[in-house]
Amino acid sequence: MARKSMRAEIVEAALEQFHIRGYNAAGVKDITDAAGTPKGSFYNHFDSKESLAVVALEHYGAGLRMADLADDRVEPLTRLRRHFEFLRDETVRHGFTRGCLFGNFGAEIADRSDVIRTAVRQGFRQWTALIAGTLAEARQAGSVRPDLDPEATARFLLSAWEGTLVTARADRSAGAFDSFFTIAFDTLLARDGDRAGA
Amino acid sequence: MARKSMRAEIVEAALEQFHIRGYNAAGVKDITDAAGTPKGSFYNHFDSKESLAVVALEHYGAGLRMADLADDRVEPLTRLRRHFEFLRDETVRHGFTRGCLFGNFGAEIADRSDVIRTAVRQGFRQWTALIAGTLAEARQAGSVRPDLDPEATARFLLSAWEGTLVTARADRSAGAFDSFFTIAFDTLLARDGDRAGA
Repeated sequence: MARKSMRAEIVEAALEQFHIRGYNAAGVKDITDAAGTPKGSFYNHFDSKESLAVVALEHYGAGLRMADLADDRVEPLTRLRRHFEFLRDETVRHGFTRGCLFGNFGAEIADRSDVIRTAVRQGFRQWTALIAGTLAEARQAGSVRPDLDPEATARFLLSAWEGTLVTARADRSAGAFDSFFTIAFDTLLARDGDRAGA
Repeated sequence: MARKSMRAEIVEAALEQFHIRGYNAAGVKDITDAAGTPKGSFYNHFDSKESLAVVALEHYGAGLRMADLADDRVEPLTRLRRHFEFLRDETVRHGFTRGCLFGNFGAEIADRSDVIRTAVRQGFRQWTALIAGTLAEARQAGSVRPDLDPEATARFLLSAWEGTLVTARADRSAGAFDSFFTIAFDTLLARDGDRAGA
């Protein structure tokens, strides 16, 4: 039990440290210090910082509430909007810092670690599939433009979201989020009659 | 003359090292080694790695051919498409690695360096303004949907581009680029009659 708990504490601390500092700047000692565990205990639980990063990324993914995208009690377009609003609110709560750990690892370390790149890719794929499913439902329900390609649009929207986090962080303002919601929902997805300015 | 040339060599090497390794992983010694200059010479030219990063970012920005976006000899929508095609081809040429240095610094270091964050923000703003100008011209020319908001759309497109680079790198494939061009140009910007699937 104690070992399991120490491992969980290391993962939780790693997630936070990676998110705040980035992959390279968060050293094993930073992580074990934040976890309140001795540095020597790290290698009882993990082969490397790289393998810890993969586990931290899984925990991060679990906190993104992707499953809400498949909650068919909520109208699909509403679900999709709420999903991004939830993620936006998290970033606002942190003073427009941190961003998305998938995107951060993708930008910082994926080129140089195949293990992390694979984990980032899998996270993006799972997320894209859920967004695509939601968009397909929305199209079926007639709440988005009828010619929408759910798969390509999902990939595009997720990329747009990841980039929006980067520009919002650079600006430390909600301007990029406002553009995301306006253009994605009121222009790109909207039926002709619903479109902003139409 | 010799001093000036050594400074230029350090900037060029820094740009490459930051782009390949990221900000934190590219140490001053990595940069001076790549430049073929003694490490000790670094501080004759720069106060810190942080101030070098700002200069490297300016040089990077100059290589993005943003000015092509204002070249009124080319039809505005064609200009915009070619701009992103040029950037895509650069990434493909590097085997889907490196991405955009503005986005990389935005994701990795902007939260922790106000100097770099400001440089990233300025780069994004300049770029957004040029894209917005191109979109306003395209609207004027009747080659995009008439209800388009050039400013918000420019901000959105640049974010989408930055995120597309991250997802393309995670995938090491052109799929994210294909979605970007299809959804941005054939769905988001297109006039009703020109739209994909319409």
